[in-house]
Amino acid sequence: MKEKEGAPKIGMAKGRIEALNDGVFAIAMTLLILNIKPPTGKQSLSAIQDFFINSLSQFFDYGLSFLLLAFFWTAQHRQFHWVRRVDDRLLWLNMLLLLFIAVVPLSTALYGDHKSLWPTALFINLNLFIVLLILYGMWAYASSHKELLSPDLSEEHRVFTKRPTLGLIPLLSIIAIVLSFIIPSWSTVPYIFVPFIMTRKLN
Amino acid sequence: MKEKEGAPKIGMAKGRIEALNDGVFAIAMTLLILNIKPPTGKQSLSAIQDFFINSLSQFFDYGLSFLLLAFFWTAQHRQFHWVRRVDDRLLWLNMLLLLFIAVVPLSTALYGDHKSLWPTALFINLNLFIVLLILYGMWAYASSHKELLSPDLSEEHRVFTKRPTLGLIPLLSIIAIVLSFIIPSWSTVPYIFVPFIMTRKLN
Amino acid sequence: MKEKEGAPKIGMAKGRIEALNDGVFAIAMTLLILNIKPPTGKQSLSAIQDFFINSLSQFFDYGLSFLLLAFFWTAQHRQFHWVRRVDDRLLWLNMLLLLFIAVVPLSTALYGDHKSLWPTALFINLNLFIVLLILYGMWAYASSHKELLSPDLSEEHRVFTKRPTLGLIPLLSIIAIVLSFIIPSWSTVPYIFVPFIMTRKLN
Amino acid sequence: MKEKEGAPKIGMAKGRIEALNDGVFAIAMTLLILNIKPPTGKQSLSAIQDFFINSLSQFFDYGLSFLLLAFFWTAQHRQFHWVRRVDDRLLWLNMLLLLFIAVVPLSTALYGDHKSLWPTALFINLNLFIVLLILYGMWAYASSHKELLSPDLSEEHRVFTKRPTLGLIPLLSIIAIVLSFIIPSWSTVPYIFVPFIMTRKLN
Repeated sequence: MKEKEGAPKIGMAKGRIEALNDGVFAIAMTLLILNIKPPTGKQSLSAIQDFFINSLSQFFDYGLSFLLLAFFWTAQHRQFHWVRRVDDRLLWLNMLLLLFIAVVPLSTALYGDHKSLWPTALFINLNLFIVLLILYGMWAYASSHKELLSPDLSEEHRVFTKRPTLGLIPLLSIIAIVLSFIIPSWSTVPYIFVPFIMTRKLN
Repeated sequence: MKEKEGAPKIGMAKGRIEALNDGVFAIAMTLLILNIKPPTGKQSLSAIQDFFINSLSQFFDYGLSFLLLAFFWTAQHRQFHWVRRVDDRLLWLNMLLLLFIAVVPLSTALYGDHKSLWPTALFINLNLFIVLLILYGMWAYASSHKELLSPDLSEEHRVFTKRPTLGLIPLLSIIAIVLSFIIPSWSTVPYIFVPFIMTRKLN
Repeated sequence: MKEKEGAPKIGMAKGRIEALNDGVFAIAMTLLILNIKPPTGKQSLSAIQDFFINSLSQFFDYGLSFLLLAFFWTAQHRQFHWVRRVDDRLLWLNMLLLLFIAVVPLSTALYGDHKSLWPTALFINLNLFIVLLILYGMWAYASSHKELLSPDLSEEHRVFTKRPTLGLIPLLSIIAIVLSFIIPSWSTVPYIFVPFIMTRKLN
Repeated sequence: MKEKEGAPKIGMAKGRIEALNDGVFAIAMTLLILNIKPPTGKQSLSAIQDFFINSLSQFFDYGLSFLLLAFFWTAQHRQFHWVRRVDDRLLWLNMLLLLFIAVVPLSTALYGDHKSLWPTALFINLNLFIVLLILYGMWAYASSHKELLSPDLSEEHRVFTKRPTLGLIPLLSIIAIVLSFIIPSWSTVPYIFVPFIMTRKLN
């Protein structure tokens, strides 16, 4: 958590920024479930059954948004694994990331309730796209400022992190944005392929 | 928080994953109380007394869900105590765990409001069962990948963690699922035995 | 965060339990503000002025509950400062503490909305009393199990922690419980003396 | 996280206070988005479009409050970077800071919904001013108690932290308070200059 005495004093140590990140991600992930509102007042058996059936698509949205936030958290985690020091620019890029991460519960709620309308589809897909852009921007910035990086990060690995498969994820994101205007209800489907791309990248 | 230089570089260090876990558990535990909605507007003394009397069963549900989350947190804590490194599979099993942990406030709210209906009883009992399944899956995976474990974990202890008494908890969970269809209002009662099983295991 | 290799293996390290505590306290403290509901819809200037005037007592309640939670956090913090290892009993006493800490936003909301009714006054005062009881129970348990304590804790300090002034705080709490039946609207006033007692203790 | 054995035993180590701070800030930042309430029930395309258009000013408020909280977090972080030990006064100044930080979601909601009324403008601007005052108070206190500071903090840097440009931020805050009475809807605009002042200070 604390920088070593001999370490260069560029920017700030990353421990507390990671703690703030973990907090914002954990809250955003847990708030997602509040989008599914349980029926209040006395309900008949068939009303409760209808509630579960009608909520199926919202449970799917919950799962997808939760896992996307988990994926973004993992991506941010991997970046900061190699970052040793955080300067002001990287700090504020990170704050922008958190700003858009905290919007995900709202964009998921809007999309979940009004799935067939293009503005809500566009809103969630733009939200996810901006998150991805900032994540790429953070790595582009950090990986070109060697004084911020851990000396353990080999040149080989820095090249590896720029492999073309990674570019497929923003591509999916752009497809999702286009689909928002054509079939809004299914426009987030491309994100289902994120884990497959991740797996290919990692093997 | 940081891996030591000489440590093997399989997967990622566990510090931040633990921080994310602690955050999601803490939020899920604290959100549970929001299920008990205080009456708004001016109330008579008898109306407030009725509120407390009618909420007794919801306070019981709050306590039970809180302690079950505390128990799950402890189980996950004990596992990660022996885990040294987290690879991708363990990371995503853990994310699935958090996904279902974050559902507990919803399933508690639904069950608390509509206790006599089997779908809500089945929902909470399936939710808790899936959490237990993932916890067992995580330990099954971690304990069969020695490169992820701390060298401090003795062979004796690994065998100990597979003692039959532990199997009683998923058994309780299956009983609870069956009870959901028969006496939904009392179907979560088997979980009251969890602490007794835990105590037997630990002595 | 990690226990040292040579440390005795009684119970578990305290790092993650502290993290869970900090999370639950931080959320309970921040949720308190949600009890003050801003008026929705278009409002006239006088309506907004009335809102602020009518909310004055709720702002006072917010501040008092926030500072009491801060005080409980500090008390728990000071205990764990001297605790080196956490065994099962101390762990579950701590979980009980968190269970009642997470109730504070509800009891504050109920009391804030229905201040003149004894059941809500009794509810918040019992809630705070139970929190204090558990805090004392935790220290009574930890301070009589030397294997859980840091060797840095001098005998002198252990005696010091049992000075009579500390006993004044539960006394205030019992006065508050009695006042709940007599003048419910002012029953939490005794807690205003907590900082003065704390200061006397510390000087 | 743990103080070194040889360190002076004034007050308490800062690790857990930082954790509580990070928690409260993360929750306050993430709760801000809950102020934007998505329309419920089936909505027409034009109703959803209206929702987004009408919410534009609330999205601006969200962004501004989020970044101000991020700025306050950064300021508090920088202070604690140089603080080695936290005594009781600094601890309770910090708790007061958190108390007013947790009010920001409420003051943002009130201002967002009733922007043209001076009481809500005054409320948010006083809230931000008090936060700044406490931040300055914390640093004034810490920087005049050398036993609380890290020996790494040079005399040069202590003088630097008192440079006049820093005084511009409370000045902006006072301008915002005055504007609350004149043009409430635009009274938070001065805070947009905070990043420029920060940049000047840091270069």
